[in-house]
Amino acid sequence: MDKIKKTVLAFSGGLDTSVILKWLQDTYQCEVVTFTADIGQGEEIEPARAKAKQFGIKEIFIEDLREEFVRDYVFPMFRANTVYEGEYLLGTSIARPLIAKRQIEIARATGADAVSHGATGKGNDQVRFELGYYALQPDIHVIAPWREWDLTSREKLLIYAEKQGIPIEMKQKQGSPYSMDANLLHISYEGRALEDPAQAPEESMWRWSVAPEAAPDEPEYLDIEYEHGDIVALNGEKLSPAAVLAKLNQLGGKHGIGRLDLVENRYVGMKSRGCYETPGGTIMLRAHRAIESITLDREVAHLKDDLMPRYAALIYNGYWWSPERKLLQTMIDGSQTSVNGWVRVKLYKGNVMVIGRDSKTDSLFDPNIATFEDDEGAYNHADAAGFIKLNALRMRIAQARRNS
Amino acid sequence: MDKIKKTVLAFSGGLDTSVILKWLQDTYQCEVVTFTADIGQGEEIEPARAKAKQFGIKEIFIEDLREEFVRDYVFPMFRANTVYEGEYLLGTSIARPLIAKRQIEIARATGADAVSHGATGKGNDQVRFELGYYALQPDIHVIAPWREWDLTSREKLLIYAEKQGIPIEMKQKQGSPYSMDANLLHISYEGRALEDPAQAPEESMWRWSVAPEAAPDEPEYLDIEYEHGDIVALNGEKLSPAAVLAKLNQLGGKHGIGRLDLVENRYVGMKSRGCYETPGGTIMLRAHRAIESITLDREVAHLKDDLMPRYAALIYNGYWWSPERKLLQTMIDGSQTSVNGWVRVKLYKGNVMVIGRDSKTDSLFDPNIATFEDDEGAYNHADAAGFIKLNALRMRIAQARRNS
Amino acid sequence: MDKIKKTVLAFSGGLDTSVILKWLQDTYQCEVVTFTADIGQGEEIEPARAKAKQFGIKEIFIEDLREEFVRDYVFPMFRANTVYEGEYLLGTSIARPLIAKRQIEIARATGADAVSHGATGKGNDQVRFELGYYALQPDIHVIAPWREWDLTSREKLLIYAEKQGIPIEMKQKQGSPYSMDANLLHISYEGRALEDPAQAPEESMWRWSVAPEAAPDEPEYLDIEYEHGDIVALNGEKLSPAAVLAKLNQLGGKHGIGRLDLVENRYVGMKSRGCYETPGGTIMLRAHRAIESITLDREVAHLKDDLMPRYAALIYNGYWWSPERKLLQTMIDGSQTSVNGWVRVKLYKGNVMVIGRDSKTDSLFDPNIATFEDDEGAYNHADAAGFIKLNALRMRIAQARRNS
Amino acid sequence: MDKIKKTVLAFSGGLDTSVILKWLQDTYQCEVVTFTADIGQGEEIEPARAKAKQFGIKEIFIEDLREEFVRDYVFPMFRANTVYEGEYLLGTSIARPLIAKRQIEIARATGADAVSHGATGKGNDQVRFELGYYALQPDIHVIAPWREWDLTSREKLLIYAEKQGIPIEMKQKQGSPYSMDANLLHISYEGRALEDPAQAPEESMWRWSVAPEAAPDEPEYLDIEYEHGDIVALNGEKLSPAAVLAKLNQLGGKHGIGRLDLVENRYVGMKSRGCYETPGGTIMLRAHRAIESITLDREVAHLKDDLMPRYAALIYNGYWWSPERKLLQTMIDGSQTSVNGWVRVKLYKGNVMVIGRDSKTDSLFDPNIATFEDDEGAYNHADAAGFIKLNALRMRIAQARRNS
Repeated sequence: MDKIKKTVLAFSGGLDTSVILKWLQDTYQCEVVTFTADIGQGEEIEPARAKAKQFGIKEIFIEDLREEFVRDYVFPMFRANTVYEGEYLLGTSIARPLIAKRQIEIARATGADAVSHGATGKGNDQVRFELGYYALQPDIHVIAPWREWDLTSREKLLIYAEKQGIPIEMKQKQGSPYSMDANLLHISYEGRALEDPAQAPEESMWRWSVAPEAAPDEPEYLDIEYEHGDIVALNGEKLSPAAVLAKLNQLGGKHGIGRLDLVENRYVGMKSRGCYETPGGTIMLRAHRAIESITLDREVAHLKDDLMPRYAALIYNGYWWSPERKLLQTMIDGSQTSVNGWVRVKLYKGNVMVIGRDSKTDSLFDPNIATFEDDEGAYNHADAAGFIKLNALRMRIAQARRNS
Repeated sequence: MDKIKKTVLAFSGGLDTSVILKWLQDTYQCEVVTFTADIGQGEEIEPARAKAKQFGIKEIFIEDLREEFVRDYVFPMFRANTVYEGEYLLGTSIARPLIAKRQIEIARATGADAVSHGATGKGNDQVRFELGYYALQPDIHVIAPWREWDLTSREKLLIYAEKQGIPIEMKQKQGSPYSMDANLLHISYEGRALEDPAQAPEESMWRWSVAPEAAPDEPEYLDIEYEHGDIVALNGEKLSPAAVLAKLNQLGGKHGIGRLDLVENRYVGMKSRGCYETPGGTIMLRAHRAIESITLDREVAHLKDDLMPRYAALIYNGYWWSPERKLLQTMIDGSQTSVNGWVRVKLYKGNVMVIGRDSKTDSLFDPNIATFEDDEGAYNHADAAGFIKLNALRMRIAQARRNS
Repeated sequence: MDKIKKTVLAFSGGLDTSVILKWLQDTYQCEVVTFTADIGQGEEIEPARAKAKQFGIKEIFIEDLREEFVRDYVFPMFRANTVYEGEYLLGTSIARPLIAKRQIEIARATGADAVSHGATGKGNDQVRFELGYYALQPDIHVIAPWREWDLTSREKLLIYAEKQGIPIEMKQKQGSPYSMDANLLHISYEGRALEDPAQAPEESMWRWSVAPEAAPDEPEYLDIEYEHGDIVALNGEKLSPAAVLAKLNQLGGKHGIGRLDLVENRYVGMKSRGCYETPGGTIMLRAHRAIESITLDREVAHLKDDLMPRYAALIYNGYWWSPERKLLQTMIDGSQTSVNGWVRVKLYKGNVMVIGRDSKTDSLFDPNIATFEDDEGAYNHADAAGFIKLNALRMRIAQARRNS
Repeated sequence: MDKIKKTVLAFSGGLDTSVILKWLQDTYQCEVVTFTADIGQGEEIEPARAKAKQFGIKEIFIEDLREEFVRDYVFPMFRANTVYEGEYLLGTSIARPLIAKRQIEIARATGADAVSHGATGKGNDQVRFELGYYALQPDIHVIAPWREWDLTSREKLLIYAEKQGIPIEMKQKQGSPYSMDANLLHISYEGRALEDPAQAPEESMWRWSVAPEAAPDEPEYLDIEYEHGDIVALNGEKLSPAAVLAKLNQLGGKHGIGRLDLVENRYVGMKSRGCYETPGGTIMLRAHRAIESITLDREVAHLKDDLMPRYAALIYNGYWWSPERKLLQTMIDGSQTSVNGWVRVKLYKGNVMVIGRDSKTDSLFDPNIATFEDDEGAYNHADAAGFIKLNALRMRIAQARRNS
């Protein structure tokens, strides 16, 4: 076992990370710095201070990172219309790089030589945290208790907590039927009751959205304004990035939008069933494609589409801080200069319907050329004959050869 | 102008292709063979016989191609989860290659030296028809009246029709507010009233689907069975490919599923606004991804995803009969061997929700490994440390270099 | 025929463009502005002035563009290790965008409404010129005499020249056995005597390089210094971009380096046989890969390799001024920040052998980790077991499934 | 430590695998099956039998796999013009899957529950072997002594050998200045004296090829005949796959062809310097591109080029037996149906020059269309205008928008 002086723990204040905190103190005999962040998970973070103090922690970091999270992580990702395996909006994946970065920054600030997280040894999150740590601070020590300790079952963990005097709430004793993770982009549900992909989850599982059946009978219309590919206003009101996403979550959730139930391929090699609620993100994806549809050059759009799955896999697999992700981001961001304008969507019982889009400054939709009516010579129909003939030439030569 | 002996015309029996028929006879002084196919557009094709006879046509081909269309074109395309520009299900694009192929076959059978179609000079369809013709019969003459004649407006066309004694129905005089195209996969609407992408289409435009608001208040559940990536049964009933799609259209339409309103990039260079109804296709896309999610290897799935936009563009651009499309198809089809099993979807007011999926024979979802519970050693958590360490190595070396 | 006021002609001063000049004056009754550039083709450009004056041209542009050509076109292209169809170094393709850009700039400066070029209707160059024109000035008129006139054979052109009093040299009467094009990057040979790809070209064809057999018996060593992916010095001497390429051409040519004889696929649809001499470019490609091999991250290098064929095709097809090429360039250029250091090559009878490479500031080659000897713990061998196990997991699950 | 009954060892008969054999017997107390294959490494394999018997081995497998190696591994790989990182011909990578497959087959035949190899913990070969084992036999035990034992230096290994009575030759005592690996496709040199990429290797290192300087002063011409992308005859003589490669190695080596000195990126994360001799492979790559240049459709060729780096990385990283490599192979093989004909190359002092290529049955080079002379209407120059106009349209609309 490495000799550790001080470690920065991503600390939620909940049972699991409390056990980890205690275990780190006992096992490594090292100082622990706690780091608790609000990234929109919907729980108070201030109570974590008192909990940390109970363990004698002296360096306690409690931070509201919501704006940074949306501005520097969520928005850049949505510029690429990012979707993993055709459906997953990467809500968990995109939060890890920020946490990892802040842990390293805090380690530097506090002179810590290690960082710790509460992710298990089977999931993607351990990879995302640790690739971030190593990319930013190559000589950092990483402590991943779930891969090291012998608390391999819920029972053992509860016994340990009890022994150590860590308070256990009733619901924690029973255990949750799912493993959950939340931030301003989504909530995820995995494991336990969801482990049979042939069975639908119970309605009671979902937290942020009503079922489409329970959504209002009246549709709601929403105007979304874009600058350089990012949303800057909703219904005419300028909003900060985090406020945009919070508002979209509220509207989407109200209208039953953004539930997803899928089986995905983890980077560590197995298939896994996950359920996700991403109300705001689901609206953002549709609307961003719509604003791009009139402001982006065709080949630029296709280049982005061709590279999107690769970009999505990089984020899913934890390579946010890699040079290749950053390089792709340069290109994606470069494409968004002209992505300005507005999109109108209709929200209704699970549906996000685009019903209008325009850009005063950057629309490439040219009604004079697109028209089915007489275009007064803007487009020469005869050009199409030559276009087709030369595009067909290689196939004609080949077929003539086969026929000869 | 080329000297033409005989041409095979794709003939719907409607006003436009009747004018074309007459114009071909007058202009080229050639024999015309008419070809009318049922590909599920929802109109009787038999009446085309009488209409053709009125023009003195001797060789009249009237064929039901619905099964061939779905089996050999639609199903192969859906094996790739094909979507153009993130949203369009390629309903028009996929029908053209079949029409082109049959026209060439009929040209060979009847000794014709030319083929003709009624697509305009601004659209994609002329390209799709003609690339097909040329690829299959390199020395064929192609007559594209819309690029050649001077009937450049609706009025001129109506005057010509009147002069030639071609019967004009009242609604044709008024002109449709949209250009429409239908087959078993979809209906498309383009042009005229749709030429402003800032404006939503009128509700009355849609033909196959009710609005989500008008759909039943009760959801409907559907079991979809797959063999080798194709649907073979619905709710336990074995169905032919065309019957599958017809049934899915009926169910989807009933539940307000599959409407799409978008701006797309045409191959001939301009942006174009299109509205589409693809009720069955929309269900198929979701369900196919779901069955693949448990039966396809991760890297195979990702390879397919990486190549999908390219494959979609080939079909959109008219390259169905190209060697590169056929080669990609080989790979796509090869991936579907293991895509067997069932998917359960819930249809409700515009939503297609996957609520279960399984495969007795081919599921790669291994609950013993995926479980959050104790897996009794099926997966060694310690392996993850090495996995992360080596994946991080190149980034650590680079960062250490920068720090040095 | 369009009514033209003034056209800017890319004018070499040779027979063909002289005939074009005269033909433009006669046919379009328009003013002609001549533009003659030195891009390293190895011929004097100043004589073009007197020739233009003979035709009464008043606006004559004669410019040395060699530095701009290498700095802004050749070097950026080599940053991507660009090769078309595995072999061709794009010597002709890369010069066209610069010519097109200057023609448009001159058209703006002189109030011309048209531009003209001397490329034929079968080749790629017409496409490269005209896509450039249109991208930079969408309403420009393009006059492509070879697609318009009836001087469709050498004889007709000579007769026309004679009639118009255009001086014809003896060698022009005989006609060249090849069509040639030269600039600082290469000479190309096409057509006529080369039209049978089964036959090798005659030794006498090659202009810039000796045959490997005729090259010196002694090898020559060359040190190449890179900054941000571009060559800045040779054998310790700082040189401008054009001077770098001129020097490499001289060295490469002397040692029989850079001849190529191939069949390529033109954008306009047919296969074409071309022979190329690219002495300096051949050295640059090998050396650039060598400096990248120690300074570029693995995944960045692979991303570049994956996109290179697409980037090469964009340049070959004439899309230099397209938004997608510019976006790819952003990414390529972004990758070169760390590409600093030196490469040593040995030149000998057609061979370019890399015999050393290093980077004081940016080498990612870490001998402590790469070593076969004891690395004192820099790399933990046991990590490899976990790395392999998790990478194998999906295949193990699948194979176990098949065996079950 | 796992309890092992019987393991199949890849056994060369040399010092290292002899030590491993003994170590396996001692450490695991298990039976060892030896497997020695001739894949063209140029050493007798029969002596391995006696050596194995000295250790009391009862099940000894000695096999000549040269034809299988070239036919089923080397040739399929060359159909894709496979090159890793722009230069490396994958000589080592391509041999491992065959060894892995035979070890697993032998394990099944002999009832062994484990397999062992002599690859180190830092290299790619351990990955290639083990991914193969696991993909083919998911429950196999893998013993990788170099990752397990404490013989971490040459000295310790020699002491162990001495103690165990394993005969040590003089040259082994001194240690080789390089780590070498050979098969019918290449020899590789790595490590020790090569660990400084700024320094060229000594001339005495190279085994299979003379230096270009030492090659004959007379060039040699070679006719290569292809069927379906594979070489079937040299200079008119039909030859088996292994005989083809052996002959090409002999010719290439004689003419100083196929030496390579590079720095590559290993899958396990570090950069590594390698020197390679691939005389026959170097000829094959050039010649295969040449035959494809006249027989392959442009877009098929480009699709192959776009996917080649991915295919190469799969082989380099050890994924030969993965479903994605097999799927790509299907596509690659499918493209080779028309790759029939001959190529003539000139071999001279390190150069492979293609000087002719033709295909009686499948050439797509059409001199009537490619000609610079009058083509009698085979190609309509006017078509190019429309082709260019429509390809430029999107850029014109965008530029007009920017100007407005």
